[in-house]
Amino acid sequence: MQNTIGNLFRVTTFGESHGVGIGCVIDGCPAGVSLSEQDIQTALDRRKPGQSSITTQRKEADRVQIQSGVFEGITTGSPISLFIANEDAKSADYSEIANTYRPSHADYTWETKYGHRDYRGGGRSSARETAARVAAGAVAKALLQHLGIEVKAYVQQVYDIAVPVPYTELDLSTIDVNIVRCPHPETAEKMIAAIEAARDEGDSLGGYITCIAKNVPVGWGEPVFDKLPALLGHAVLSINAVKGIAFGDGFESAYLKGSLHNDAFYTSAQGEVKIRTNHAGGTLGGISNGEDIYFTTAFKPTATIMQAQETINKSGVATTLNPKGRHDPCVLPRAVPIVEAMTWLVLADCWLMARGNRV
Amino acid sequence: MQNTIGNLFRVTTFGESHGVGIGCVIDGCPAGVSLSEQDIQTALDRRKPGQSSITTQRKEADRVQIQSGVFEGITTGSPISLFIANEDAKSADYSEIANTYRPSHADYTWETKYGHRDYRGGGRSSARETAARVAAGAVAKALLQHLGIEVKAYVQQVYDIAVPVPYTELDLSTIDVNIVRCPHPETAEKMIAAIEAARDEGDSLGGYITCIAKNVPVGWGEPVFDKLPALLGHAVLSINAVKGIAFGDGFESAYLKGSLHNDAFYTSAQGEVKIRTNHAGGTLGGISNGEDIYFTTAFKPTATIMQAQETINKSGVATTLNPKGRHDPCVLPRAVPIVEAMTWLVLADCWLMARGNRV
Amino acid sequence: MQNTIGNLFRVTTFGESHGVGIGCVIDGCPAGVSLSEQDIQTALDRRKPGQSSITTQRKEADRVQIQSGVFEGITTGSPISLFIANEDAKSADYSEIANTYRPSHADYTWETKYGHRDYRGGGRSSARETAARVAAGAVAKALLQHLGIEVKAYVQQVYDIAVPVPYTELDLSTIDVNIVRCPHPETAEKMIAAIEAARDEGDSLGGYITCIAKNVPVGWGEPVFDKLPALLGHAVLSINAVKGIAFGDGFESAYLKGSLHNDAFYTSAQGEVKIRTNHAGGTLGGISNGEDIYFTTAFKPTATIMQAQETINKSGVATTLNPKGRHDPCVLPRAVPIVEAMTWLVLADCWLMARGNRV
Amino acid sequence: MQNTIGNLFRVTTFGESHGVGIGCVIDGCPAGVSLSEQDIQTALDRRKPGQSSITTQRKEADRVQIQSGVFEGITTGSPISLFIANEDAKSADYSEIANTYRPSHADYTWETKYGHRDYRGGGRSSARETAARVAAGAVAKALLQHLGIEVKAYVQQVYDIAVPVPYTELDLSTIDVNIVRCPHPETAEKMIAAIEAARDEGDSLGGYITCIAKNVPVGWGEPVFDKLPALLGHAVLSINAVKGIAFGDGFESAYLKGSLHNDAFYTSAQGEVKIRTNHAGGTLGGISNGEDIYFTTAFKPTATIMQAQETINKSGVATTLNPKGRHDPCVLPRAVPIVEAMTWLVLADCWLMARGNRV
Repeated sequence: MQNTIGNLFRVTTFGESHGVGIGCVIDGCPAGVSLSEQDIQTALDRRKPGQSSITTQRKEADRVQIQSGVFEGITTGSPISLFIANEDAKSADYSEIANTYRPSHADYTWETKYGHRDYRGGGRSSARETAARVAAGAVAKALLQHLGIEVKAYVQQVYDIAVPVPYTELDLSTIDVNIVRCPHPETAEKMIAAIEAARDEGDSLGGYITCIAKNVPVGWGEPVFDKLPALLGHAVLSINAVKGIAFGDGFESAYLKGSLHNDAFYTSAQGEVKIRTNHAGGTLGGISNGEDIYFTTAFKPTATIMQAQETINKSGVATTLNPKGRHDPCVLPRAVPIVEAMTWLVLADCWLMARGNRV
Repeated sequence: MQNTIGNLFRVTTFGESHGVGIGCVIDGCPAGVSLSEQDIQTALDRRKPGQSSITTQRKEADRVQIQSGVFEGITTGSPISLFIANEDAKSADYSEIANTYRPSHADYTWETKYGHRDYRGGGRSSARETAARVAAGAVAKALLQHLGIEVKAYVQQVYDIAVPVPYTELDLSTIDVNIVRCPHPETAEKMIAAIEAARDEGDSLGGYITCIAKNVPVGWGEPVFDKLPALLGHAVLSINAVKGIAFGDGFESAYLKGSLHNDAFYTSAQGEVKIRTNHAGGTLGGISNGEDIYFTTAFKPTATIMQAQETINKSGVATTLNPKGRHDPCVLPRAVPIVEAMTWLVLADCWLMARGNRV
Repeated sequence: MQNTIGNLFRVTTFGESHGVGIGCVIDGCPAGVSLSEQDIQTALDRRKPGQSSITTQRKEADRVQIQSGVFEGITTGSPISLFIANEDAKSADYSEIANTYRPSHADYTWETKYGHRDYRGGGRSSARETAARVAAGAVAKALLQHLGIEVKAYVQQVYDIAVPVPYTELDLSTIDVNIVRCPHPETAEKMIAAIEAARDEGDSLGGYITCIAKNVPVGWGEPVFDKLPALLGHAVLSINAVKGIAFGDGFESAYLKGSLHNDAFYTSAQGEVKIRTNHAGGTLGGISNGEDIYFTTAFKPTATIMQAQETINKSGVATTLNPKGRHDPCVLPRAVPIVEAMTWLVLADCWLMARGNRV
Repeated sequence: MQNTIGNLFRVTTFGESHGVGIGCVIDGCPAGVSLSEQDIQTALDRRKPGQSSITTQRKEADRVQIQSGVFEGITTGSPISLFIANEDAKSADYSEIANTYRPSHADYTWETKYGHRDYRGGGRSSARETAARVAAGAVAKALLQHLGIEVKAYVQQVYDIAVPVPYTELDLSTIDVNIVRCPHPETAEKMIAAIEAARDEGDSLGGYITCIAKNVPVGWGEPVFDKLPALLGHAVLSINAVKGIAFGDGFESAYLKGSLHNDAFYTSAQGEVKIRTNHAGGTLGGISNGEDIYFTTAFKPTATIMQAQETINKSGVATTLNPKGRHDPCVLPRAVPIVEAMTWLVLADCWLMARGNRV
């Protein structure tokens, strides 16, 4: 069960960092969606390593192949299998990672859970798995395209450098203009400088990503356990390094009394039901209300650093882990398309679930 | 799908606030667990309304009946049906709520989603549904009892009044000593005063609950999509009024560089694998590492307030909603057992899932 | 998982034969369906014991209560909980069944599986559980009502007495005219006589039920694993005492070569795609083709008989089981509504699944 | 949902007959199972086309590649992706099949359901999809290997030529000795002759396969909806061309009264609980009782024949379908490993489910 997400738009990912390849099977995508490898490749290219000086220098072409479920450029209703061959899987020396538990990595817990572990490049616990999510997310996006929904994520904070204004004051079309994917130019510059400094120290930085889904119709999300924020929380908290998520005012909600936090309804000049504020972040009772859905998610700093670290080996003996290879000083710029992808996956599922609302 | 949670320990809740009653069916609880109605009642009594001056004055006995799945005080492996009859469902005048969309309530979204809505007392969107969760959580707790796991939640913050120390410096056995369920006496006093003031103003307050799970064995949680934090996030974000959740250092993680945030492994004098810090909050790669799992969750202020509010009716006409009846100025004290229950449900599911780890 | 059936129209049953009661929760029924307790009661009355001289004389009123999910006579989209209190659960002497494995009953396998068993009246393995299925089936029928679908089952064979003509030559509106539910009067008379003879000998009889679903739209059933016959097979083979199922020509298919078995397409005068024969029984590639779906299912003779039987007790010691109480010499007449109910459940699920076919 | 089978041992298949390839992802296989490509290849070779003069002459190497989930020859607990590239997918002329509904094929129903269809070689409705099932079945077999379970299927009947003795009188180790996979030599010879005659007439034959699972422990299968026969029925009825399934005495059960059909318990000399007869076919109340589980399944004759057939095209115009290419006069010999595979899949799932029986 653990490698599948979604109730009706079901995505199962597979593959290890340095095995044959990674991929996913999407079961439940309706027939009739225009879909090309290029649609998916475009999404993957935003996530792939080696894009800029502030991300990992690992080189992966990350070429996706559609193996099934699409015929003459249209989905057929059959499972869509997407495959990305691994290319950078050189026969490295894995003896250290094979025998040592890297701090804040999953080596120890996987080893204890399964007794046996593909340690090459982190195996399945590698963030490389998220490429399959991004590929699946592109399919979800293609499915929902005709509804006019937009999903935009950006880097809101790196270390202690935060965008000083809410998303409503940003031009979200400029997110990809800079390499840190922050649509606030001055802040972006400072973030880049901070990441470069951390990179040079062999250290790493965390931060926040904010994501906004616009034009989601009213009525998506299932009440009770599959509320829209619960599904988004599940999806986003399943991304490596994510430590928290907050919707609308989130943790700031506590600082407003109910009389100020409540979002008052009114009828717009066009006769639409609207709310004057959007403290809730686009859902009421877990169901979309037609306003922007927005949330912020926290990433811890990358666990891999280029500094010596105290740890133990598989026999429990203390040892020092020495830095080796490449590291990603800040995952946030590359995590932007991942957060977007998870949001698309949830929205696609909610759309299909909502078809069961009424007779 | 929307009213069921869990992969193997599956809980389906049902019932509306002012219908015949509410309840749940638990499917997947192994045979051989000692379970009595009293075990469940004890949990329910911590959630029930009318406990103190700072919660709603609605009176519900909330007596649970075990309808199936338990024989001679032991679970049989068959579904456990729990039923709680509604008692306070007087034939009130629901004409206002039937025709008006209460601000920050689910009236509008349910109506739009389903076209038809049981409006009596909020119907199924009422927080009364959480009684069924608490009942189910008591069964999960009984299931895990022999493993020595403890789950403790407390009120960490109300409005802007926060416990000034981390959970590790609190005596978690004193949570229920005061009516606000905060184990820091001075803070508890201030919280109670703030809630009383809000109540008298007809207003409401939000806040934070911190929850800790101790003694969870290494290896629980499924990698990739069903990481332990993802499952907990799903479960907790499905509680009414929850707007965010953060694990370990959570949103504070951003303020530490990797070199400081990484949790270093060592071997204890007893030969156990331990970590020197617990910034991660008890999981690595989404799998429990044997340390305390802890998280904090944010609740918005209660939507129902005793003040006049601007809104619209079903026809879209502007109207004023006048206060009526009873309100809960702060749900946090009663939400403590709900957060614990959701945590127990996730842990029970993870335990059963983990049985499939190895041959 | 074991007590739930359906992907989108999900039915979870609970309860034991002699506990508080039995029931089910239906999750996934769309809002907007007219539904009354009487709709369900009518279905239950066809299954209830004590209907006639050829079924068990056990008396159960089997009054159903809708506990949730219906408001003002219309489903709300919320889970529908149905409850049937047990009335005939007198404090009988269960010492024999508690300690002895009844031949061809589930006592031994449940005991071995779970280590603990509610033996009162067979507990959860009792055919009484099927009352909850019939209740759920009535909801599925109400959901599909507007589509003009009809589901009709009848007793095709009892012991070696078989209806000599295919269903197409019977008047299916006369099924309930006689107590054996066989719409072929001469055969019905012989069946009744055979059952009465078996009853008087303290013996029991099996037989076949044929079921026909008319007017199912083209395109229901999911290709590959959830083919319509696979889902129907799953559902029907989960009924107590069922030992086989066959679709269309079924086991007779082997006796026709492909050139004779293939169903030729033609276009009707009304411009509809039709087939000249219906050897396949209404599906092609597991998907409904618009023709009658029909299948036959075999029931073994009732395990409970009024004759002394050799067996062993829980300690493995040989013993003789002496007849006691009431028995049902032939379950088929009462199984007719159960087979229909399982068919309705599958069809409801397929309808909802089919909503995901296309964009 | 439609392309996945299993609750805990979950297999998702993908791929079309003449696309890039076909395959499956197995999620839920525990870590620690020895597994090689050769284990899977051996199973595939029994199913592959072109094995003998009585099956299709289509040539496919059907080489399987393990893409993930296995490291150093041992499963890791991660999803196992298996891929089989298509080789025989020459750019044939598909114009006829693209525009014409072949009798008793899925062309019409898929087209109507999805509005868009990969018609090349039948696309996803092709029996080629079963290669992925056989591959997955080999993994399930490897998982259960240490339990001593054996699954053996054989061709019991072709057209009207049936093995005249029950399986208990056959030497099941000789199934693969002849090309029709019937362990009764005289019958095998007659079957082969009949298939050759049908092949020469351009016609096709159906028949029965009997399958036996030995040494299944007591207690597998979930009571109520996921009874072992219900799961097996679901799995087997999802195979192309299967029209019926019967367990134990199956449809013959009707001809025995209860007093003769009941299987009497006794204690063996070794102190084991045994039954004197096995009319039930190895399950009681849907749960394995330790005896042989056996069932027979009916296959209709292959739809593709080398004779002219009346049909219609997509516009509804009557046309004649002329024979072209290759055909499989009888699928049963190659279906033997498919039936076995589906049985292994169900047993693997039941084993994992049974881990949740008790605390």
